[in-house]
Amino acid sequence: MFDKLHEECGLFGIYSRERKNLAADCYYALYALQHRGQESCGIAVNDRGVIHCYKDVGLVNEVFTKEKLAGLGEGRIAVGHVRYGTAGVNPQQNAQPMVVHHMKGTTALAHNGVITNAQQLRDEMEAQGAIFHTTSDAEVISQIIAAERLHCNSVEEAAVRAMDRLDGAYSLVIMSPSKLIAVRDPRGFRPLCIGEMENGCVVFASESCALDSVGATLVRDVEPGEVVVMDKNGMRSLRDKCGTCPKSHCIFEYIYFARPDSTIDGSSVHMARQRAGAFLALEHPVQADVVIGVPDSGLDAAMGYARQSGIPYGLGFIKNKYIGRTFIQPTQSDRENLVRIKLNPVSATVKGKRVVLIDDSIVRGTTCARIIKLLRDAGATEVHMRSSAPEFRFPCYFGTDIPSPENLIANKHTTEEIAKIIGVDSLGFLSCENVIKLCENTQGFCTACFDGKYPCQPPKDCGTNKHETLLPEEEE
Amino acid sequence: MFDKLHEECGLFGIYSRERKNLAADCYYALYALQHRGQESCGIAVNDRGVIHCYKDVGLVNEVFTKEKLAGLGEGRIAVGHVRYGTAGVNPQQNAQPMVVHHMKGTTALAHNGVITNAQQLRDEMEAQGAIFHTTSDAEVISQIIAAERLHCNSVEEAAVRAMDRLDGAYSLVIMSPSKLIAVRDPRGFRPLCIGEMENGCVVFASESCALDSVGATLVRDVEPGEVVVMDKNGMRSLRDKCGTCPKSHCIFEYIYFARPDSTIDGSSVHMARQRAGAFLALEHPVQADVVIGVPDSGLDAAMGYARQSGIPYGLGFIKNKYIGRTFIQPTQSDRENLVRIKLNPVSATVKGKRVVLIDDSIVRGTTCARIIKLLRDAGATEVHMRSSAPEFRFPCYFGTDIPSPENLIANKHTTEEIAKIIGVDSLGFLSCENVIKLCENTQGFCTACFDGKYPCQPPKDCGTNKHETLLPEEEE
Amino acid sequence: MFDKLHEECGLFGIYSRERKNLAADCYYALYALQHRGQESCGIAVNDRGVIHCYKDVGLVNEVFTKEKLAGLGEGRIAVGHVRYGTAGVNPQQNAQPMVVHHMKGTTALAHNGVITNAQQLRDEMEAQGAIFHTTSDAEVISQIIAAERLHCNSVEEAAVRAMDRLDGAYSLVIMSPSKLIAVRDPRGFRPLCIGEMENGCVVFASESCALDSVGATLVRDVEPGEVVVMDKNGMRSLRDKCGTCPKSHCIFEYIYFARPDSTIDGSSVHMARQRAGAFLALEHPVQADVVIGVPDSGLDAAMGYARQSGIPYGLGFIKNKYIGRTFIQPTQSDRENLVRIKLNPVSATVKGKRVVLIDDSIVRGTTCARIIKLLRDAGATEVHMRSSAPEFRFPCYFGTDIPSPENLIANKHTTEEIAKIIGVDSLGFLSCENVIKLCENTQGFCTACFDGKYPCQPPKDCGTNKHETLLPEEEE
Amino acid sequence: MFDKLHEECGLFGIYSRERKNLAADCYYALYALQHRGQESCGIAVNDRGVIHCYKDVGLVNEVFTKEKLAGLGEGRIAVGHVRYGTAGVNPQQNAQPMVVHHMKGTTALAHNGVITNAQQLRDEMEAQGAIFHTTSDAEVISQIIAAERLHCNSVEEAAVRAMDRLDGAYSLVIMSPSKLIAVRDPRGFRPLCIGEMENGCVVFASESCALDSVGATLVRDVEPGEVVVMDKNGMRSLRDKCGTCPKSHCIFEYIYFARPDSTIDGSSVHMARQRAGAFLALEHPVQADVVIGVPDSGLDAAMGYARQSGIPYGLGFIKNKYIGRTFIQPTQSDRENLVRIKLNPVSATVKGKRVVLIDDSIVRGTTCARIIKLLRDAGATEVHMRSSAPEFRFPCYFGTDIPSPENLIANKHTTEEIAKIIGVDSLGFLSCENVIKLCENTQGFCTACFDGKYPCQPPKDCGTNKHETLLPEEEE
Repeated sequence: MFDKLHEECGLFGIYSRERKNLAADCYYALYALQHRGQESCGIAVNDRGVIHCYKDVGLVNEVFTKEKLAGLGEGRIAVGHVRYGTAGVNPQQNAQPMVVHHMKGTTALAHNGVITNAQQLRDEMEAQGAIFHTTSDAEVISQIIAAERLHCNSVEEAAVRAMDRLDGAYSLVIMSPSKLIAVRDPRGFRPLCIGEMENGCVVFASESCALDSVGATLVRDVEPGEVVVMDKNGMRSLRDKCGTCPKSHCIFEYIYFARPDSTIDGSSVHMARQRAGAFLALEHPVQADVVIGVPDSGLDAAMGYARQSGIPYGLGFIKNKYIGRTFIQPTQSDRENLVRIKLNPVSATVKGKRVVLIDDSIVRGTTCARIIKLLRDAGATEVHMRSSAPEFRFPCYFGTDIPSPENLIANKHTTEEIAKIIGVDSLGFLSCENVIKLCENTQGFCTACFDGKYPCQPPKDCGTNKHETLLPEEEE
Repeated sequence: MFDKLHEECGLFGIYSRERKNLAADCYYALYALQHRGQESCGIAVNDRGVIHCYKDVGLVNEVFTKEKLAGLGEGRIAVGHVRYGTAGVNPQQNAQPMVVHHMKGTTALAHNGVITNAQQLRDEMEAQGAIFHTTSDAEVISQIIAAERLHCNSVEEAAVRAMDRLDGAYSLVIMSPSKLIAVRDPRGFRPLCIGEMENGCVVFASESCALDSVGATLVRDVEPGEVVVMDKNGMRSLRDKCGTCPKSHCIFEYIYFARPDSTIDGSSVHMARQRAGAFLALEHPVQADVVIGVPDSGLDAAMGYARQSGIPYGLGFIKNKYIGRTFIQPTQSDRENLVRIKLNPVSATVKGKRVVLIDDSIVRGTTCARIIKLLRDAGATEVHMRSSAPEFRFPCYFGTDIPSPENLIANKHTTEEIAKIIGVDSLGFLSCENVIKLCENTQGFCTACFDGKYPCQPPKDCGTNKHETLLPEEEE
Repeated sequence: MFDKLHEECGLFGIYSRERKNLAADCYYALYALQHRGQESCGIAVNDRGVIHCYKDVGLVNEVFTKEKLAGLGEGRIAVGHVRYGTAGVNPQQNAQPMVVHHMKGTTALAHNGVITNAQQLRDEMEAQGAIFHTTSDAEVISQIIAAERLHCNSVEEAAVRAMDRLDGAYSLVIMSPSKLIAVRDPRGFRPLCIGEMENGCVVFASESCALDSVGATLVRDVEPGEVVVMDKNGMRSLRDKCGTCPKSHCIFEYIYFARPDSTIDGSSVHMARQRAGAFLALEHPVQADVVIGVPDSGLDAAMGYARQSGIPYGLGFIKNKYIGRTFIQPTQSDRENLVRIKLNPVSATVKGKRVVLIDDSIVRGTTCARIIKLLRDAGATEVHMRSSAPEFRFPCYFGTDIPSPENLIANKHTTEEIAKIIGVDSLGFLSCENVIKLCENTQGFCTACFDGKYPCQPPKDCGTNKHETLLPEEEE
Repeated sequence: MFDKLHEECGLFGIYSRERKNLAADCYYALYALQHRGQESCGIAVNDRGVIHCYKDVGLVNEVFTKEKLAGLGEGRIAVGHVRYGTAGVNPQQNAQPMVVHHMKGTTALAHNGVITNAQQLRDEMEAQGAIFHTTSDAEVISQIIAAERLHCNSVEEAAVRAMDRLDGAYSLVIMSPSKLIAVRDPRGFRPLCIGEMENGCVVFASESCALDSVGATLVRDVEPGEVVVMDKNGMRSLRDKCGTCPKSHCIFEYIYFARPDSTIDGSSVHMARQRAGAFLALEHPVQADVVIGVPDSGLDAAMGYARQSGIPYGLGFIKNKYIGRTFIQPTQSDRENLVRIKLNPVSATVKGKRVVLIDDSIVRGTTCARIIKLLRDAGATEVHMRSSAPEFRFPCYFGTDIPSPENLIANKHTTEEIAKIIGVDSLGFLSCENVIKLCENTQGFCTACFDGKYPCQPPKDCGTNKHETLLPEEEE
């Protein structure tokens, strides 16, 4: 897939036994998680209870300079965040970590997911006089935990109590004045893992590739419903909410979001994608000369299709690696060329060949059609497309920014019609039966975007946000 | 005075009968108020209840580009803020206006002053579960107003009730979904005025020079204790708190902070400074050949001294007008030269002359001594210094960033000693008797920095801030 | 005068006996000369024959960062330049110093002025195969000197020979591998002075204010026609061209261009302006209550008028000091307000008063008219304008960017008509008789812009430039 | 290969029948050629003889904004350049295209290659009074052509004459007031091709991938020694120098420099690399479980090795695609981690496997050793390295920035020793016999870096540059 869907966030937290330049570790870890969010990023460092935080709109290597990192000082705990957000109001304000001051000191919180009852919780709290600075779920969670904190003895207990009130998907890393805490919702929608470094240093991260980047070793994943606490007494778990719901791991993490070099909930992302390709070869075989993938997320499945089918794997496209945020988009009349500027076919691979083209999904179909035209122009005699995800048909309420149903091509057309629209000789989607078999070591997935079976209640007023739409003026 | 003291903030608000590009008005008004705060600035525009806000660290013309202004959209109400802040934690987070969402919608608040019981109010609210995102007083005020809002029928009534809880100095401009509100504390420490534009447009600003910049006419000042409301029904006042305290206008607004072309509480700032010069000539006459002022704030008083004494006024210094934030400071060994780089004496004016040098105050005395040395090097045969403010002896708790008492030269030395230290032939300060006579049309001043008579209780733990000092770690 | 005319350039050169961080000295000196050119700037440092140069479009404190200065390294000779240029083609390319490599090594050249026969010289050299990289006169001069260098024994002799070929105005600072050389054209149009620092360090600068900024002492001015050489053998002069022409110092340096704290050719700029005010008071007396000047260049003359007439001097305007290059200009409909945004009248000074307003010149009259309207709006009962320059009537070919004759208001209207157009009660210009008496210690001025008496031949094709106009295509 | 060698430049030129926004075409073409030079870039547009040029240090999408492109205006001819340069003096000054004014108007020139007798040509011209502004060969070429232009009737004839004087490697695109000209040296070291667009538009580019990016079709390559002229009369050739030397195409263009989707001199770069892998499999077979390549340039050869050997191709590494110029490098102590931050192994691919690792070359061996250690840490049981280039042993004088011989690992060690140093179980290099067989349709290569057989005389004083080293000072 090529620039179509967006994950909400990437998290990182680190607890060290001694004061160190933890901001640098956060920087490299966030850099490894950059694919999970390119809108804004932030790092908060805790130096004996005082939290220094810097966050802004931009990529990790744009937002943070040497001076900015140095300005965060040394500390023993730190937390970082990268965020993707819809082009809403005030992206600057919604950047995380969210740092709040409360009765027990200052905490920083980083969140990945969507709280489906967030608006209801806001309404309740506002009715009691609470104010909110942002439109982000992270602030709702921070308020809930601060409120629960009044009724219990520790922030980790407050987190457990908060889980009774929060619905939806949430992986959290929380930094209190003296602790680093990881929380994963009872369904385990979004990933969160635990790593170790030398000297008893503990880290939490959305994906294991972030552990690799700081030289940490993957220990295990945070369990759905688990609260993991790290402080001067070591690491311990509160498992009150574990096993209270069936697991609902997001299958799309494996298909598209996560980095192939990550291992999530025990399964390699790369292997899951390669297996998707193999299943596709079994479900939708075809006579062809070469198998190619759409960079970058279609490549792994293409290798799997090639191995299973025996058709040689080839280099289909060169993706320009210098695209930056300041790249000038072609004018409307030239927009056709934009795909070619980013993604040029290798005619030596496809000219005069019957090509199997693997992508990870088909959403609207527009980009797809342009890519296929490029292949035809480069001399491919046949193009057989295979999608390593089933047809997208339903909205996601748990963190994937899928276009509204009326824009999903699979909602309006049969496979044959889609094949015609995008201009391929044949088209095959991975079946819903096989998509849940992609991971050798993992079970329990949310596949609602394919089959509409939501593991929990979608929000009532989903799609609207009272702070982002024009309202009638206040009547007093 | 030359780069020594700093005022906290400048405010601007505008209410229009029709949707317009109000962000541009804010931009020019904030630009006129830039002298009141150079650390950060922000503008919030209200378009039918939806507030778009942009704020960042930097000068008005650095923070706002055409694109940023356009991104704020059109609206009918807007509020802007420039801020000076001590080099504290997270200047980015403390930028204003402060935009908060609450039960009744979204409001934006801009504040100038210091709440002396802010820490106590924070503690109370935190004990009830409230969280704070910043260390700024503006957030305390926002929380208090939101809390009071639950017990009354309008935001303006909530503002009146909040005045019972807030101590210290505060001028506020508040934008609710449908109203623009100005609030001034009952003592009237900080200025706030009301202006009118064509088509029934109403503006509030810290100083009248901001009205001039947008073509508005000064109507009057907001009275101490007054809450002024502007909405579709027009402008009205809540005067419950008016007259509940003696007035305590900050005299230093006239001496240094405000722009000479502003009129504050009925008196011209320029005239007040010119009168200071005249009083100085009467109190501390001297035989001399030329009167010069230290740019920019000493010039008005120098003219006053010249007129009263009959000694000619002269151009003493050229101030380099290209100094920007990115200017490279000389290294330590060259620091002596920094004053000269910014401020070069005009030897044609002072060579062979007995010079009267007027500055608006003497704080530490260091810069003063360097300026006087420049004059001697340029050939002045005598230098007689006159300060248009009395001796600084006491800390200010109401918004002026005066160095701690042990760094104030007047606390450690007699006038004769100071004269010797800074190298002048004679030295005279304006008397406390006359400083309160500077304004023809205004009475009731706070002169605590000169005489230690504080109009209200200073904060108990002044000088410490629990969120900005290193704390023992939380014990749970 | 308020943003109307522009000088071409400012020069600085320094020769030290030991290797030092000379880039910093250049930085502060150029900063002091910033008023002479805001388009681009550059510094070249010579470290044992290797020249490191950095130059770019922008102000000194924008172009140079600490890293950029450090990147220039240490050296024993350095030269700097600030440039104003018409908004022409490739300002980036025309930035100076111009560094060229030739048979005898590398030289850097900084130029202030206009070579009136530049096009003819270019044509001659191009006909022999020479190529030019820029459209600047500095390159023509560099080529001429390199060509002459082939026929003599030193670069200073080449400079003397070059003076036979170059017509017009030129002050130069040239850095060869081992020497620093100052050159001033035989008529002495543009200023150039010599200063000394401790340890035998020698500096050249366009104005003495740059000497002050680096702690140097003014020794004398470079004489018209003189070539001053500084190398390891000390300073010496080649005076072959001295006295070959009458002096033609640009009178407008005193009236507007130069900084008041500079002394040029023996006369104080501030005193010259103050004397202009005094002459105006004598030539055009009036009954009035206050004398004010238009900041910044009208202030000195206003003081002179006030002293001579006995009418009190007042603070007429506050000029906003935060205007930066990124300032957003008002839209066309608001353009009327731009003057007010930059320049606000002090109504306390002018309300109900008969005002004498001094400016240094009237060019088009447009800005003037707006300023006068501001004064009337602020309550001035009468406005009597006095211009400290005579009427502008003729183009300048020697470095002043005067609008074309048809845009000069004095070319189309009588004084009475101009008074009516700009809206004043009376108007008076300094006479041509007195303008040449402004400087006590200097004689020999070019006043061609007032009287059309050009000291040398204007260029034949003045106003057109073959490289900057659209040409018929080359026919081959 | 992973960030080790650097090519000098990429060229693009376009000639249109009508005035259009050619700067945008240059932008997208240069963007496609960005891999050929990341130091600086520039675009020059010719509008009826007037050339507007903008160039600066930085990537294409950093240097050019919408405003900058618009500022170049419309035109009928344009030329662009990306440049890699050693970290020398004044990268800003050496940016291209080089725009020079001469007797026949203005021309812009873009150059890729190295003139081996440049210093000698400079000396000759300087001895006749010529001056140089830069240290670049492009200026030498410009001077030579301008000089020859005096003796012939057209710029293209001057180019032909210049070829008699220029030695070494040069591909040029030259824009005269009315023509666009492509020149390739008689040995054809560096690539240059011709493309066509609709409406008779002609383009020249270093690689065909740039043609794809603007929708042009590859017509043919410029022949070694050919001068191709495009003007209003259409395209024509001057072939005086064709066939005067044996061809010496740089083999390293195919192995590393060029983009795999380019076709150069008739052969696909991707296919050449894939064939390198196949040759390696034939020359150095091994028993193994998976073949992986070092991204990006080792991937094609890895596919070739896999196909030929029958060992499966696998995804060995994930390369972080967000690395930007502002990325903060790890401190010295963490430098070991830098490779991992940029390049993380996919343990699912290599764990427990015997791995064949393909890279395009081994230069110093340091990065190589780190990559191999990453694979071992990720669980590879054996690592067999294959290099798709022969051993680097000799310096390149024609545009490849190879480290000095004493830093080339193959100059100091046998293959067995290198295997031990970098930590592999076996190591094999492509043989010199086979490296010249990589391209199916191309013959005549320069392989001097492998075998020391230089196709023409290396420069006498190679490695030193009189303008970039510290010289004794000029004695006059």
